[in-house]
Amino acid sequence: MTLGSWNDGAARTAILEFVDRVTEEGGTDHVPPAERVAVLDNDGTLWCERPTYIQALFVFARLRDAVAARPELAERPVVKALLAGDLAGAQAFGMEAIAGVLLELDAGRTTEEFTRDAEAWLAEAKHPRFGVPFRELTYAPMVELLQLLRARDFRVFIVTGGGVEFVRAVGEEIYGVPPDDVVGSAVQVEFVRRDGRVVLVRKAAMLGSPNEGEPKAVNIQAHIGRRPILAAGNSAGDTEMLEYAHTGEHPSLCLVVDHDDEEREYAYAGASVTNPGAESIVDTAGRLGWTVVSMRRDWNRVFAG
Amino acid sequence: MTLGSWNDGAARTAILEFVDRVTEEGGTDHVPPAERVAVLDNDGTLWCERPTYIQALFVFARLRDAVAARPELAERPVVKALLAGDLAGAQAFGMEAIAGVLLELDAGRTTEEFTRDAEAWLAEAKHPRFGVPFRELTYAPMVELLQLLRARDFRVFIVTGGGVEFVRAVGEEIYGVPPDDVVGSAVQVEFVRRDGRVVLVRKAAMLGSPNEGEPKAVNIQAHIGRRPILAAGNSAGDTEMLEYAHTGEHPSLCLVVDHDDEEREYAYAGASVTNPGAESIVDTAGRLGWTVVSMRRDWNRVFAG
Repeated sequence: MTLGSWNDGAARTAILEFVDRVTEEGGTDHVPPAERVAVLDNDGTLWCERPTYIQALFVFARLRDAVAARPELAERPVVKALLAGDLAGAQAFGMEAIAGVLLELDAGRTTEEFTRDAEAWLAEAKHPRFGVPFRELTYAPMVELLQLLRARDFRVFIVTGGGVEFVRAVGEEIYGVPPDDVVGSAVQVEFVRRDGRVVLVRKAAMLGSPNEGEPKAVNIQAHIGRRPILAAGNSAGDTEMLEYAHTGEHPSLCLVVDHDDEEREYAYAGASVTNPGAESIVDTAGRLGWTVVSMRRDWNRVFAG
Repeated sequence: MTLGSWNDGAARTAILEFVDRVTEEGGTDHVPPAERVAVLDNDGTLWCERPTYIQALFVFARLRDAVAARPELAERPVVKALLAGDLAGAQAFGMEAIAGVLLELDAGRTTEEFTRDAEAWLAEAKHPRFGVPFRELTYAPMVELLQLLRARDFRVFIVTGGGVEFVRAVGEEIYGVPPDDVVGSAVQVEFVRRDGRVVLVRKAAMLGSPNEGEPKAVNIQAHIGRRPILAAGNSAGDTEMLEYAHTGEHPSLCLVVDHDDEEREYAYAGASVTNPGAESIVDTAGRLGWTVVSMRRDWNRVFAG
């Protein structure tokens, strides 16, 4: 059944009605296939982001490996706090100090080496509460939504605050989204000729701002070049992306995943980690008439794995 | 006939053999469809770039419009030189001064307005020598190559030194390449709420470096996320992109269009406009064993229009 993991309810109905409306041949709200662009946040929208971002767990594992190889690293107070899992303590040194440590870990690795590292970790590591590999913690209802959208000639893009190379390492396998359809935060790379080959080597510096908030809309233009007609997110860092989709010339659908299911997943407000003062996107959705997806009420199954 | 505008010869044979080799099921050189990434330069590789870049003619037209509306602009010496078509004179003020003038022209326009401007100009303007709209000056043999590649499950991307928004305005129509599959030079845009809508407004500043030389390889990673197995270009600004494709783990095909046909198009060396000291890419091709495509000998038809 179409959207079989979705309960009958307002969210499922809104999705099905929207898809019918914009794809009906000859309908007044018909949108040509080329303009059926859908953009979806990843962490907390397509897969689990608690107790912390999956990529953060990957980075901590890399940090432990680095310290095993170079113990003097652990003498730096910010590293000490990170290794102890004391995020609040680490944050006292500032986000830039944390980012600096983490960016240094992979500096000097080629993009191809980094992808293999991420793939290897994702094949082995398990979620601390659910005890399964992270690739099994995609949301079944959202994977079904991606399938429905593709079947109706939408183009589906992931627009994530996470690192673009990390999400690319699994995007095709778990979502059917190829690397070029992932837009995310990125590090700078350097063009290097090495042993007769061209390789791209990661530097210890971000490429532009993290892909959260206004940059999500700006990077949609930079990478995709069309205003989306469907956008989905779950935190205040997705608000501007949904606003951008919402105020185009075509009809639009904006979906907000509300994490209200402590039993099967987690319960937390849709605030922004990077912008803690911002309004919860669930409240924004109420204000602007976006469709809230209640994990507890709207989904009869949570995880695809 | 497959590649009907190509004469029998080494270039056509190299293309057909390469495509067979990497797509043969069970063959030792088989490349999975997801990794069949092809990247092609645009100006001089897919369409005519003489007497000057098509986009430069668009920008000069915009400059004449701007001067008509604000005559005081013409008092600036660099503008005066540009309006007189005196490119050498304009260059004496430095490329940054020229770029500054041109970037200012569209600063404040939304990305959607810019696209409409480009579409309108491309619908009307004609090539000074051939007297036809520029969209008719795509190379028939290269358009056939794109069709062949898609039929064999390649993904086809344009990687251009030109402005990404300008090429996107025609890419789907003339090449079947959608906006998200165009990688190019870009300007910065600003996220603005205006009259209840989100719009993206162009600023008078480039986003990063022009997409020529090493940045072509770097931006392929940023936008596409996979190393190409086929690359085509015609100037020294494409050399690094071809090197990147050439030195991957899969077999590769690197094509260099040699403009040696003064009668049907133009004859000029494959130097770089932005890096005048660089080796002609036709010479690089000879050195590295890339496939040179002679417009005069290999193509029985030049333009698709």
